[in-house]
Amino acid sequence: MNKKYNVVVVGATGAVGQEILKVLTEREFPVGELRLCATARSAGKIMEFQGKQYTIEETTAGSFNGMDIALFAGGSASKEFAKDVVAAGAVMIDNSSAFRLDPEVPLVVPEVNPEAVKNHKGIIANPNCSTIQMVVALKPIHDAAKLKRVIVSTYQAVSGAGMEAIEELTQQNKAVINEEEVGIKVFPYQIANNLIPHIDIFGELDYTKEEWKMVKETQKILGDDTIAITATTVRVPVYRSHSESINIETETKITAQEAKELFAKAPGIIVVDNPDKKEYPMPLFSSNKDEVFVGRIREDNSIEKGLNIWCVADQLRKGAATNAVQIAELLIK
Amino acid sequence: MNKKYNVVVVGATGAVGQEILKVLTEREFPVGELRLCATARSAGKIMEFQGKQYTIEETTAGSFNGMDIALFAGGSASKEFAKDVVAAGAVMIDNSSAFRLDPEVPLVVPEVNPEAVKNHKGIIANPNCSTIQMVVALKPIHDAAKLKRVIVSTYQAVSGAGMEAIEELTQQNKAVINEEEVGIKVFPYQIANNLIPHIDIFGELDYTKEEWKMVKETQKILGDDTIAITATTVRVPVYRSHSESINIETETKITAQEAKELFAKAPGIIVVDNPDKKEYPMPLFSSNKDEVFVGRIREDNSIEKGLNIWCVADQLRKGAATNAVQIAELLIK
Repeated sequence: MNKKYNVVVVGATGAVGQEILKVLTEREFPVGELRLCATARSAGKIMEFQGKQYTIEETTAGSFNGMDIALFAGGSASKEFAKDVVAAGAVMIDNSSAFRLDPEVPLVVPEVNPEAVKNHKGIIANPNCSTIQMVVALKPIHDAAKLKRVIVSTYQAVSGAGMEAIEELTQQNKAVINEEEVGIKVFPYQIANNLIPHIDIFGELDYTKEEWKMVKETQKILGDDTIAITATTVRVPVYRSHSESINIETETKITAQEAKELFAKAPGIIVVDNPDKKEYPMPLFSSNKDEVFVGRIREDNSIEKGLNIWCVADQLRKGAATNAVQIAELLIK
Repeated sequence: MNKKYNVVVVGATGAVGQEILKVLTEREFPVGELRLCATARSAGKIMEFQGKQYTIEETTAGSFNGMDIALFAGGSASKEFAKDVVAAGAVMIDNSSAFRLDPEVPLVVPEVNPEAVKNHKGIIANPNCSTIQMVVALKPIHDAAKLKRVIVSTYQAVSGAGMEAIEELTQQNKAVINEEEVGIKVFPYQIANNLIPHIDIFGELDYTKEEWKMVKETQKILGDDTIAITATTVRVPVYRSHSESINIETETKITAQEAKELFAKAPGIIVVDNPDKKEYPMPLFSSNKDEVFVGRIREDNSIEKGLNIWCVADQLRKGAATNAVQIAELLIK
């Protein structure tokens, strides 16, 4: 019989937590004992996993005893309980931003830098959702032609702000259609029939933290902080799957055809790029899927060595749950 | 008494045509005789202008006799009737793409190249909606620091595809909420809860015609085809007002503060850029307005001389009707 691993999911009731449970099942992760934790507010609720019912426990310092892997869905629990996970001898795979730029913590996208997992000291960070899909797409181009500069504009789904945000978009869409007053709770403004060019808090040079994540995390994952990256991140009224318009400048010339071939061979990428047949990636058709979809692959007409691409991936899947479970798979390999 | 001008609006019943009538009134254009034309399908309908009722006439070669200004809302009528407008001695202000790149036809944005109006030979072209708002924003930067390269990603409202498209988004939003089958007519795919990275037909190098318009029209309006421009155009589930993430590289250095001051002084621009107060341009709050809203003004962290900006404007207003009426104002000045 194959070895099984005891797994605790912290934040199990949220959008990412629920997706982690689905992905553990779909990818047949060898789960031994399973523990589902959340805040006191959710404690006592019942969730199902592979036909068995589990009672949600409040996360405490003791939640990690006897566990091998602790999957943290995100939020403030990560910082609070990291030392307890490590003390218990489990490995934390963390979806929050708390440790991502810590030089002691590997920041891992399994298609890109799987080797980084080896250097962990009890904590492995899962990158930001927008970063994960971009770096999967950039990797084959970087390997072939070395990235010089990346300019990205995002079109981010409401799922990135959790379950309440998904519900908020539905309620707002209803209110807009019925010409009723639109309630606002999760986002700073109405998102239905609108765009909000503001994700996470504002920081240095008036860029948002979300924009800086795309810069710093990408440089760390690719192991090259000479790659120049600038980002503009925007929330759009789409339920699920983030989209990105990525402009890439490379050191050596790469044609659109060569880029298509590189993407087609790269792990975790599906090329959807057939203008004649109106085939290109779209969030509606990329949801509930684990891959990163790349299309609209064009040589940049404005410089000698550049590309424009359009990249879409399910933010809750590859952008969070799938990537975390893939890291767990690397750990037990 | 001030001189009045006889005006014919061709395509009066469409989204742009209706907006032209509103703008003529709001801006107190000295309309003498007014004639409202459209296709045979709309002929006989009644429309109101300044409290008077008008019967829509089918556009014919004779529609321009006795007219001073012919405002064409767009579509195939422009090519069909251009020679008749010129023969009648009227001036055509054309919102279609038919003549925009014709070297004999001025392509005019009044805040940017008003002097071009003088060289007309009976036809003046109104640029593409995405181009108009971008070029208004680029102009003060170009004058101060000379544009070297522009990389733009658009977030275009459904209003750009006309009234049927606006109705389609409403119907699809309802269907999504009620979990009913979503009907598709105007766009190639469902646009509610989705993004479609495809506007107009595909062309050279797999860029769409919409993307090439942003390149070629901008170069023509700014009178400088050495400016390198590349575009990715995307339809978003927003009713009205296009948004654009614009990355700008300049010949000389310009700080974010200098850029803000230039924008604040520039005609037709309203700066909305106060991160501390969560103030930035958004399509929901830019609709039914004539100005171009610019915010998220940041120095580009990835190069020495560059900026990132976020630009929003009502596609039916400044992107079409307002710009056309402004051209008419230049003509009679």
